[in-house]
This record gives sequence, structure tokens and C-alpha cells, in this order.
Amino acid sequence: MYELFIGDRLFSSWSMRGWLMLRKFDLPHQVHMIGLYSGTMAADMEPLAPAKLVPTLRTSAGVVVGESLAMAETLAEENPDAGLWPTDPAARATARWLCAEMVGGFSALRGECPMQLRHVWQGFSVSDAVQKDLDRLATLWAHARRFSDGKGPGLFGSYSLADVFYTPVAARIIGYGLPVSDEDRAYCLTLLSDPAVKDWRAEALKTTYDPMPYDLALTHVSWPV
Amino acid sequence: MYELFIGDRLFSSWSMRGWLMLRKFDLPHQVHMIGLYSGTMAADMEPLAPAKLVPTLRTSAGVVVGESLAMAETLAEENPDAGLWPTDPAARATARWLCAEMVGGFSALRGECPMQLRHVWQGFSVSDAVQKDLDRLATLWAHARRFSDGKGPGLFGSYSLADVFYTPVAARIIGYGLPVSDEDRAYCLTLLSDPAVKDWRAEALKTTYDPMPYDLALTHVSWPV
Repeated sequence: MYELFIGDRLFSSWSMRGWLMLRKFDLPHQVHMIGLYSGTMAADMEPLAPAKLVPTLRTSAGVVVGESLAMAETLAEENPDAGLWPTDPAARATARWLCAEMVGGFSALRGECPMQLRHVWQGFSVSDAVQKDLDRLATLWAHARRFSDGKGPGLFGSYSLADVFYTPVAARIIGYGLPVSDEDRAYCLTLLSDPAVKDWRAEALKTTYDPMPYDLALTHVSWPV
Repeated sequence: MYELFIGDRLFSSWSMRGWLMLRKFDLPHQVHMIGLYSGTMAADMEPLAPAKLVPTLRTSAGVVVGESLAMAETLAEENPDAGLWPTDPAARATARWLCAEMVGGFSALRGECPMQLRHVWQGFSVSDAVQKDLDRLATLWAHARRFSDGKGPGLFGSYSLADVFYTPVAARIIGYGLPVSDEDRAYCLTLLSDPAVKDWRAEALKTTYDPMPYDLALTHVSWPV
């Protein structure tokens, strides 16, 4: 049984990735909430030291893993038949690249469009830096699709960790109405329509805390899926 | 035969990591220089698209991998007996965590103390943010050593990818005389004394281009190893 420590469902894109890694590949797990907004985070994390951020994973052997990519690789290694990475070696190497670039890159998109699963904001103004990130995203997704001739539902054909890592990105694209191609928008909606993601969002909507910058003075419409 | 595309040896910490992954584990490889300072970088990288940064790896199967952690995992997977990751599963999961945290963290240390292999700068003033990064480093390295009872030479006992990822960090610590414990300083010097690192530095010193901020107005002494 894996233990996953998360902080929030509505806004924590990293928590969402950690959970999807377990849920989407049917890995038995238990979720623990860390008091991200209640002031108890440091105390709650202490048994997991030196991990200090969510999500953190604890394996059945008691090994603590405190970074999402390391969690992904550890889960993939411990569950070689669960299909976490694409089976084709070239696709797998590329999927690893796309996940690593997601983790290290897209700073404008991540900074200016914080993930939120509540509404679709309307009239959001796309900065040049965000547009550059969106262009990069289109390039990487097109590159990924070459490995499966564009046959989905995942970026590399079957659903894989690459789709896990890009699901919160899809939530940003849909949640702020960001301009992407029809194909990429359809892919985002496929990711967000996943029953696991819908379950996560249903739980997330019970959150009362809301740090969103409402002084954006944007209007919003309903989540599309 | 792997092909590695790098941009510089004296200042590019990422290029150094990519090369160490191949050289330290005896993986046959060829190095190509990308014109980082000559204005030809975009053209030089074009055959590797959509990779756009150094280092980039091309495998013998022609698969391009454009992120260091993805390169590391791909090399480890293709060479399971070369010892890239620690053999103990708990140590391996933790090594992956430390590498991922290195890639995503330590922004003050990386920003304020850019890697350079030329001199040891004296009188460098350590900001609070850099000190916080150094404290985190001490915590993570101490955590790593628990898996091998502190038996080196590597963080996890035998030399592993964790040592590859922290070698440029060691160069920053030594190159700016940053305050660390005696044990950590000894570890940094062990990393920098490695014959592979010495070979790399000898090549690096042939570099004439030098973007270092000499207006720091610091004096310097010789590299210690």
C-alpha cells in the first residue's frame, strides 16, 4: 500500500499529479491531507523529513520520496506491468523528456495561470511569455504524437505518465480559455473528462479555501466536462 | 555509440552533467559542440528538434532526448549493469529524489553562484537565500549518507548519478568558497578530484570566452585539485 501526502485538490497541480500516478495505474494507495492552509504543514510533514513539500510518497517499504519525477520513476520500477511509461523505448525516452521539461519549464504559464479546477475564466489576457509557453507545448505534443501516429487517447497512444504530468496543464488551458489548436483542445478535454480526474475535481470542489486572485475581475462560465 | 551535444565546458553545469553520465559509467560516446557563443546555436540544434538546449543526447537508435533527468533514466535503462543508480531500491528511490530536487531547486545558489571551473573566488558574500540553499543541501546529503552509513566515495556509497548531478554544485561550493561542513567540503573535493572531472576541466580551461561577472571585484586563488 502506497501512502500519498497531498495538500489540496483544487489548486495543487503537483498533488494532482501524484494522485493520478497511483489512481490511473490502479496502484493501491491511501491519501493523507497535509495542513497546507491550516498552519500545520511543517508539523504534518515532520515524519516525512527531509521531504518538505507536497506531494510526498511513502512506499510500502517505508521509503519516502519527495519529488514528483522520482515518485513516477519509483512507481514505474516497482510496477513494471502497470503501463506507467509507454512500452516502446523511443516513446518512453521521449515521454521522460516531456515530463522533465514540464517539471522544469513553462514558468510563465505556471506563474500567470495558476491551476484551479473551479471555473472557466473568460477574457483572460495572454501575455507574450504565456504564448511562448503555449507554442512550446504545441511543439512538444506534436512531437509526442509522432510515436503513436496521433492515436490517443494519450500523448503517446495509451495513457501514460506523460498524460499525468500534462493533466494540470490541460486544466490551465481549459480553465483560462487559452488559445490552442483544435487537436490540442480536444486532448485537454479528453484528459479532464477522465473519470479519475472527475472524481478528483468533485472532491476538490468541497474546498472552501480560495486563494484565487479575483481582482482579475474576470467573469467565468462552467467547467466544460 | 551515444552522441552528446554540449555548449561549453567552463560554465555549462548541465553540459558537464550530461558528459559525466556517459564518461563515468564507461558508456561509448561522441561529443559534439553546439555554437553557444558563436551565434550558431539555433542552426546547430535544428537536427535535434524539438530539443533546443544543451545538453541533448542522441541514442544509437537515433532517439533524441532533451532533458538531463530523462537522459539519465534512458541511459540507466539501456545499461542496467553499468551502475548508474544505486543498486539498493531505497537508496535508488532517494537518489532519484535528490537528482530531481537538484534539477528543480537551489535557485539562489544557481543564480548567484554560476558554475565556473577557472578559479576559487575569495570574499564572496553569501546571501540569506544562498545560505538557505546550502542548509538544504546539507540536509539532503546527510539523508543520502544514511543509506551507506557514510561510506563513500559517492553520496550513496558507490559513485552514482546522484554524484553526477551534484558535481557542478560541488564546483560552485569550492569555486566561491561557500561555507559547508568539513564532511561536505571533503565530499566536494572528492568529486572534483575525479580523473574524469579533471579531464573535463583541462579541456574547459582552453575556453577563451568568459561571461563571468568580474565586477564582483573579488580576488581569486587557484583551483584546489
